[in-house]
Amino acid sequence: MASDKPYHVVAIGNAIVDVLSFADDRFIDEQQMRKGTMCLIDDARAEGLYGAMGPSTEVSGGSAANTLAGMASLGAKTAFIGKVNNDELGKIFRHDLNASGVEFTTPETVGGQPTARCLIVVTPDGQRTMNTYLGAAGEIHPQDVDMGLIARAQVFYGEGYMWDLDCTKQALRKAFATAKEVGAKVAFTLSDVFCVERSREEYLQMIAEDFDILFCNHEEAKALYPGKSFDEVLDALEGQCEVIAVTCGSKGSIILTPNGRVQVDAIWVTEVVDTTGAGDLYAAGFLYGYTHGLSLAECGRLASACASDIITHLGARAQKPLKRLLVA
Amino acid sequence: MASDKPYHVVAIGNAIVDVLSFADDRFIDEQQMRKGTMCLIDDARAEGLYGAMGPSTEVSGGSAANTLAGMASLGAKTAFIGKVNNDELGKIFRHDLNASGVEFTTPETVGGQPTARCLIVVTPDGQRTMNTYLGAAGEIHPQDVDMGLIARAQVFYGEGYMWDLDCTKQALRKAFATAKEVGAKVAFTLSDVFCVERSREEYLQMIAEDFDILFCNHEEAKALYPGKSFDEVLDALEGQCEVIAVTCGSKGSIILTPNGRVQVDAIWVTEVVDTTGAGDLYAAGFLYGYTHGLSLAECGRLASACASDIITHLGARAQKPLKRLLVA
Repeated sequence: MASDKPYHVVAIGNAIVDVLSFADDRFIDEQQMRKGTMCLIDDARAEGLYGAMGPSTEVSGGSAANTLAGMASLGAKTAFIGKVNNDELGKIFRHDLNASGVEFTTPETVGGQPTARCLIVVTPDGQRTMNTYLGAAGEIHPQDVDMGLIARAQVFYGEGYMWDLDCTKQALRKAFATAKEVGAKVAFTLSDVFCVERSREEYLQMIAEDFDILFCNHEEAKALYPGKSFDEVLDALEGQCEVIAVTCGSKGSIILTPNGRVQVDAIWVTEVVDTTGAGDLYAAGFLYGYTHGLSLAECGRLASACASDIITHLGARAQKPLKRLLVA
Repeated sequence: MASDKPYHVVAIGNAIVDVLSFADDRFIDEQQMRKGTMCLIDDARAEGLYGAMGPSTEVSGGSAANTLAGMASLGAKTAFIGKVNNDELGKIFRHDLNASGVEFTTPETVGGQPTARCLIVVTPDGQRTMNTYLGAAGEIHPQDVDMGLIARAQVFYGEGYMWDLDCTKQALRKAFATAKEVGAKVAFTLSDVFCVERSREEYLQMIAEDFDILFCNHEEAKALYPGKSFDEVLDALEGQCEVIAVTCGSKGSIILTPNGRVQVDAIWVTEVVDTTGAGDLYAAGFLYGYTHGLSLAECGRLASACASDIITHLGARAQKPLKRLLVA
């Protein structure tokens, strides 16, 4: 797409610092987690689980924030709306996002709940299982949505994780309405199977009516239409949005449009260390391409390249600038 | 060595959380750092430098703490003496050390200076340049040295970094004296070229009189004897301690004893990501071997294996248990 709007993407999302630790599958069972999903946890559970986890690494996270950090690392102009507390983790989150090149000026909360953290267990297969204590991240209200910022965006992007709390859901609805008013494309990620299961009807309605661009993985897509085969799901989705990108892990991704499908290969890596952020970085590469006039096939290739970069190390933020992926 | 003392190693050291970020060599020059060294910085410099650094990853660190975490990951029984504040980074440091299996019960400070952090810039060659804000870590006083703990250790281990402050130096001297009294071996790392340059005469005296086991790298060894060639330095050191292990990066290491030398090969890795902690993990492997009755050649091989593991990812703490290195 071509546009004179200064921001390629403005996004709203949960502002989270990830706390990542390796463990075997037995730990997932013992802690009664559903592998590969995201679960919201309270303060007491966060403390207990952290105490049981092994030595950890802290890396800023948050799905939409990861996507913007990836886009900025590719060279795009982006801005983030989200809430941190004025504590140490909040300072770390803000530093990392700003240092990535993403604008982030939403004021922090003072006192009250601490900055959100996501306790992530990475199993030997590289799969990540996430436990999120939302804290201050859940305190985004409709009045925090900077409409002037969205008016200067080519694409507005939101994450399904925000559909879990009423106030963040209302903030997201307001942002979608603003985006439509000002002529920004509306992009969304389904985020998680649990999110889809909790909000299936609303999601289906928004896919039909509100979204221009949709990201989801194979399992989230299937959770939209219980009982349907994957091929039937693709048929059902096709044509509902301008672009629907369905990722299938190591099998690549399928981009559905009203005018047909594009099949995209995954990019092979020597060792999958940690899949945290793979979908977020896929969206980063795709949206960079989309806002820079690339073909859908090129968007998909860049999306795969960004996803394959992030799974070679711990955490969902690129350790080295992603711009190098543009020359390939 | 054989012993009925329950702790293989008890160590005292700076309790630090590392904040790691990749940058090119130009950044090192612009920030007027001396590449590959450790520099102490104050609060204002820490804030300014953090603001200039790219997106970062937080991993618990501290030289002696890294060594103990590595030993515990191999299966050894260890305990750490050091100071954190009761802030978020302090909780992270304590969690990570305990979760590694290291006993760490030194009470935290309340109020006052925050937990120490080390701002580490990693260049494309994998070299790390460190800037340490000591904060609460500098508040170890002689009365914090748990003599009963040292009495139950086969080896007491201290780090040269602690020689920079008067109170931590006095704490270390008290610990050395205690270790000698109770018949524990005294081990020490020279830590850094700057440390050697600042304290050369004291270090030389302690090498001659106090240390049973000494770790240093090629450059630190040379800094002990300005003007001497590396071969002359090895000749000068040989026989002064029961064991002196001199590491030479990718060229391996040389173990000097009163009865001759053992040459140890480095272990090749596909990609050197970050050398932070390479020396600390060498010491971990060596001291594990030493306290478990391995030959010096076997100690050196395990030391090299631990060092080569840690340089394949960001940060100085093993991401996966090091026990797997024992079966090779």
